[in-house]
Amino acid sequence: MIIVMKPHTSEAQIAEVVARVESLGYRTHLSRGEERTIIGVIGDDRPIDRGQFEAIEDVEKTIPILKPFKLASRDMHPADTLVSLNGKPVGGQEVVIIAGPCSVESRSQILEAAQAVKEAGATALRGGAFKPRTSPYSFQGMGEAGLELLAEAREATGLAVVTEAMAPEQVPLVAKYADVIQIGARNMQNYNLLNAAGESGVKVLLKRGMMSTIEELLMSAEYILAKGNSQIMLCERGIRTFEKYTRNTTDINAVPVLKQMTHLPVILDPSHGTGKWEYVGPVAKAGVAAGADGLIIEVHPDPSQALSDGAQSLKPEKFAQLVKEIRRVAEAVGRK
Amino acid sequence: MIIVMKPHTSEAQIAEVVARVESLGYRTHLSRGEERTIIGVIGDDRPIDRGQFEAIEDVEKTIPILKPFKLASRDMHPADTLVSLNGKPVGGQEVVIIAGPCSVESRSQILEAAQAVKEAGATALRGGAFKPRTSPYSFQGMGEAGLELLAEAREATGLAVVTEAMAPEQVPLVAKYADVIQIGARNMQNYNLLNAAGESGVKVLLKRGMMSTIEELLMSAEYILAKGNSQIMLCERGIRTFEKYTRNTTDINAVPVLKQMTHLPVILDPSHGTGKWEYVGPVAKAGVAAGADGLIIEVHPDPSQALSDGAQSLKPEKFAQLVKEIRRVAEAVGRK
Amino acid sequence: MIIVMKPHTSEAQIAEVVARVESLGYRTHLSRGEERTIIGVIGDDRPIDRGQFEAIEDVEKTIPILKPFKLASRDMHPADTLVSLNGKPVGGQEVVIIAGPCSVESRSQILEAAQAVKEAGATALRGGAFKPRTSPYSFQGMGEAGLELLAEAREATGLAVVTEAMAPEQVPLVAKYADVIQIGARNMQNYNLLNAAGESGVKVLLKRGMMSTIEELLMSAEYILAKGNSQIMLCERGIRTFEKYTRNTTDINAVPVLKQMTHLPVILDPSHGTGKWEYVGPVAKAGVAAGADGLIIEVHPDPSQALSDGAQSLKPEKFAQLVKEIRRVAEAVGRK
Amino acid sequence: MIIVMKPHTSEAQIAEVVARVESLGYRTHLSRGEERTIIGVIGDDRPIDRGQFEAIEDVEKTIPILKPFKLASRDMHPADTLVSLNGKPVGGQEVVIIAGPCSVESRSQILEAAQAVKEAGATALRGGAFKPRTSPYSFQGMGEAGLELLAEAREATGLAVVTEAMAPEQVPLVAKYADVIQIGARNMQNYNLLNAAGESGVKVLLKRGMMSTIEELLMSAEYILAKGNSQIMLCERGIRTFEKYTRNTTDINAVPVLKQMTHLPVILDPSHGTGKWEYVGPVAKAGVAAGADGLIIEVHPDPSQALSDGAQSLKPEKFAQLVKEIRRVAEAVGRK
Repeated sequence: MIIVMKPHTSEAQIAEVVARVESLGYRTHLSRGEERTIIGVIGDDRPIDRGQFEAIEDVEKTIPILKPFKLASRDMHPADTLVSLNGKPVGGQEVVIIAGPCSVESRSQILEAAQAVKEAGATALRGGAFKPRTSPYSFQGMGEAGLELLAEAREATGLAVVTEAMAPEQVPLVAKYADVIQIGARNMQNYNLLNAAGESGVKVLLKRGMMSTIEELLMSAEYILAKGNSQIMLCERGIRTFEKYTRNTTDINAVPVLKQMTHLPVILDPSHGTGKWEYVGPVAKAGVAAGADGLIIEVHPDPSQALSDGAQSLKPEKFAQLVKEIRRVAEAVGRK
Repeated sequence: MIIVMKPHTSEAQIAEVVARVESLGYRTHLSRGEERTIIGVIGDDRPIDRGQFEAIEDVEKTIPILKPFKLASRDMHPADTLVSLNGKPVGGQEVVIIAGPCSVESRSQILEAAQAVKEAGATALRGGAFKPRTSPYSFQGMGEAGLELLAEAREATGLAVVTEAMAPEQVPLVAKYADVIQIGARNMQNYNLLNAAGESGVKVLLKRGMMSTIEELLMSAEYILAKGNSQIMLCERGIRTFEKYTRNTTDINAVPVLKQMTHLPVILDPSHGTGKWEYVGPVAKAGVAAGADGLIIEVHPDPSQALSDGAQSLKPEKFAQLVKEIRRVAEAVGRK
Repeated sequence: MIIVMKPHTSEAQIAEVVARVESLGYRTHLSRGEERTIIGVIGDDRPIDRGQFEAIEDVEKTIPILKPFKLASRDMHPADTLVSLNGKPVGGQEVVIIAGPCSVESRSQILEAAQAVKEAGATALRGGAFKPRTSPYSFQGMGEAGLELLAEAREATGLAVVTEAMAPEQVPLVAKYADVIQIGARNMQNYNLLNAAGESGVKVLLKRGMMSTIEELLMSAEYILAKGNSQIMLCERGIRTFEKYTRNTTDINAVPVLKQMTHLPVILDPSHGTGKWEYVGPVAKAGVAAGADGLIIEVHPDPSQALSDGAQSLKPEKFAQLVKEIRRVAEAVGRK
Repeated sequence: MIIVMKPHTSEAQIAEVVARVESLGYRTHLSRGEERTIIGVIGDDRPIDRGQFEAIEDVEKTIPILKPFKLASRDMHPADTLVSLNGKPVGGQEVVIIAGPCSVESRSQILEAAQAVKEAGATALRGGAFKPRTSPYSFQGMGEAGLELLAEAREATGLAVVTEAMAPEQVPLVAKYADVIQIGARNMQNYNLLNAAGESGVKVLLKRGMMSTIEELLMSAEYILAKGNSQIMLCERGIRTFEKYTRNTTDINAVPVLKQMTHLPVILDPSHGTGKWEYVGPVAKAGVAAGADGLIIEVHPDPSQALSDGAQSLKPEKFAQLVKEIRRVAEAVGRK
């Protein structure tokens, strides 16, 4: 980091800040401009709380130079990390599709959905058994019974299963039934959950919080990586902005930014990204054109009966048509 | 809610939507405008997922009419709820002040801080033992040892203790030592934690997520209320916007909005709201002038040594001066 | 619109609001729910200021039902509007590309840029002679001399010219030299400029403000349409959000939303949308995959010497390669 | 600024960037960290377009060190600038109040409003004759006839007049009738208008754009200052965020931030800041408590008949009561 001193700071005060930095085991490098003096801190200063320096009256501000993540960074790990999903490497040549309903609602619903997305060409089945809902009056998910139905759907179709855990103590239970633990947008900074997922060693789909920066997403991945688990897929699912015509704003920029900064595979969620089934297709294709390694799409046998996210769920026949269109875009950008 | 049909929808399609609403046990009310037909849903439709209707092709959109919260609303509960803190009713005449360091760092640090804020006029001591940090490389809190020190500080000063729980399984532990469980901004939609706090019956300080609307804050309070616990203080602590000169943007509007909509007391956090000690004083006074029932302010014996949030922590002498100024503003708006 | 009354409003008060609506020449339709009474206003209520009703103490809120735009809407004008650019219909089968430097800087710079983008396959040349700059110390554009150079570049290459007017009195001057007047993001709600552009009858490229909703963009188009000019291309160029790794957040959702709501052609600007040349290619392709009718891309013969927007400008050879890739994506989605 | 090089950049490439900086007339200062090399640029580099350097492939990013404004900064001009309004110095001890309707609608309306706010204690009258409206179907203001009525109201009451100009060519006309030219939020970056206001030498009330940063507000003031006009009042009027319960989010933090960074007086607009008359009072008082030098408040003789902004306008008797409450808060923070 660099520390920018206020104008008219005395030499004694600068020396005091320098001494403070050096007492923490770092070297310093002074640069005197015409209006400001800046103190460069030499060394891996990621563990320092910059606020300590901003608390000093003569300090105007501090500016980080290093990205705060290390394990998630391509600087340290240039080669792509591949996460195997049903034998297919996510992060490689092929664009993978994860699809299914928002929630597991019944045996027939999830089996029907699984069959439909399998036939259309999906690699994995999504479906929530534990549901984070804004309202306590909304359907909260089937719990373990839902996990059992997901396992049955996997048995029936051969699809991998992706499903959410909402609390650290649910991780072992979800891991028992699922191939991939999803950490949802609202839990992206639930550090106890991130630690539990890291320790489990199970594959993780980590969704970006709806008002989290790309850097914070990578810092949350860093928590999981720091526990020794690198089987992480990052998921852009739309961010919250002032725009009201869509539920969220799909941050399509995040796809090339993440591909440049990290070695982890990147998945796009056009269903949450738009919130409306009519826009899912165009944005799904945009994601592939921008370089996403996969898509996660909500599909429901009958969206008008869905207990959650009906507005953004595709009917099976619309999804099947979309997969064909996605394939053409994938080929146009040199993917499969 | 009302359901707005697309233009040129046929009578048969309207009838189908009406039938669908009535099959869920609600009555309907049709209104035909010149360009749009709208279907009003009569009854408490809070449990319906509006997405079910938005999934229907002829439906343009749905619009909620009722606020989604009930127990948190003044509609149902017009009188102010008071939460007693050390014998003082929060939500009444007096403006209460909760103060202390971001984190418990050591015995001397927390005892010194407690003594200082007590003398300056605070009613409760804040200090985190479990710390949600963006980076796994940052100080993560002292854990139970920190809780013990907080209890010791209470013993020494008579201050009530407010401290954070980050996961459902920490709730009983925190409740053992603290007077008030804080649910932090990043956990405002951690529903397992909300449920655990609700079931504990312990007083709760619920902070607004930096990415959450006022309505979502009230819905999170609704989770706690639905478990039978109404001892909740709501805390505005700044939201995330595009503005970069401050860490967050204090949503001062939220103070009168919350006072109008809910019976729960409202606390303002000018330390997180601004992120910079130089702005804490003016915004603290603004909060009281706007009608806040209390303030939560970060104070550290030596901010330049703080392991977290040094930049926004006040020195004890600055805090003591501020409390005097706050008192004058409180009196000017008819509070104590 | 509908008017939602507060709970416990008396019959007399409801009657007063109804009378007020009817005095303005509208009919009303009352709907009494269990918790709220709502008053539907029947007729084209776009000219009413909803604030008049929100000023009444017993009114809780008003909610618009009709979209506020008419001329820009597909409701009223279902067929696509085509804007001819150099004989090519924008909004039709073919995806058109507008390219060139941010600013006209010199004769050699603009001629070189024009030649390069022409060879790569662009249809029109962009380049600013009047530049809206955040700082008064930045390069403000060459003014009319720049317009003359643009005209010379058109002569030399046959490209159409797109360039910005910043004030009503510049419109005739810009129209004298350019094929298309650009209204920049900062001027999207400069109504005097919109009126002048509408009255000029010249083709307009209307950029979305970085702080403007899709609805506001369409309302600004409505100003131009209301003056009898329907030769408008709408341009999504990124919005301002909390994300800091990119200059703006490209709102890719806006592409399908606009294609659904309006008959006007939609252009994407991946240069301003990302702010960094390394991300321009992926986002350009995403735009085409999402259904954009065209792209506007910054290209500079030597970005490291550019007087503005160097960071987001492509070198000519990178642009030529990108055009080939864009073509493949266009074909994959059934465009040319 | 500092220029951060990518890791593994060669010495030759660093030397090239250094040479490029020095060719522009600046000195450089190299600092080699363990992971990154940074190049400090010594001198007033405000005129350099940082994008030129970000266009270089080996450059990771550039970071400004100096604030981009000079004339608006307290660094260069530590003493408060006072703007005299009707003989009262804005920016001094006294908190001034500007009040009146959103728009001038008729002779009786503006005279009645002027009389009412005068009696309640206001120093200046607001009222728009040229109105920037989102919709072309909304009332656009009375134009010059409105200006004449404002002048008549000044004659009748002795209040100073503040009214908006929307285009450069309106500046002389507005200056003929008004004491202060208002530049509205939508025109904060209308540079032709800023230049015209600067050249006019007339007092300016410059409103912050609803999605403009504090820095951008100060840069717009810099345009006016650079033309030799320092009679500027800055106005915080709420910014656009994701929050939906209020029309805008009052950025109360902006008050102390501006007071620290600039010598220009700071006015708060709680009417636009909240968008709802019920919240205007608490936020007005908050503004004074936070250190604002004045308030601008919408008052209408009958808000339910207002042609614009009825929802956020106070009735005269509510305003008179509020002025008394504001006075108490002003005294509590040592103001008048």
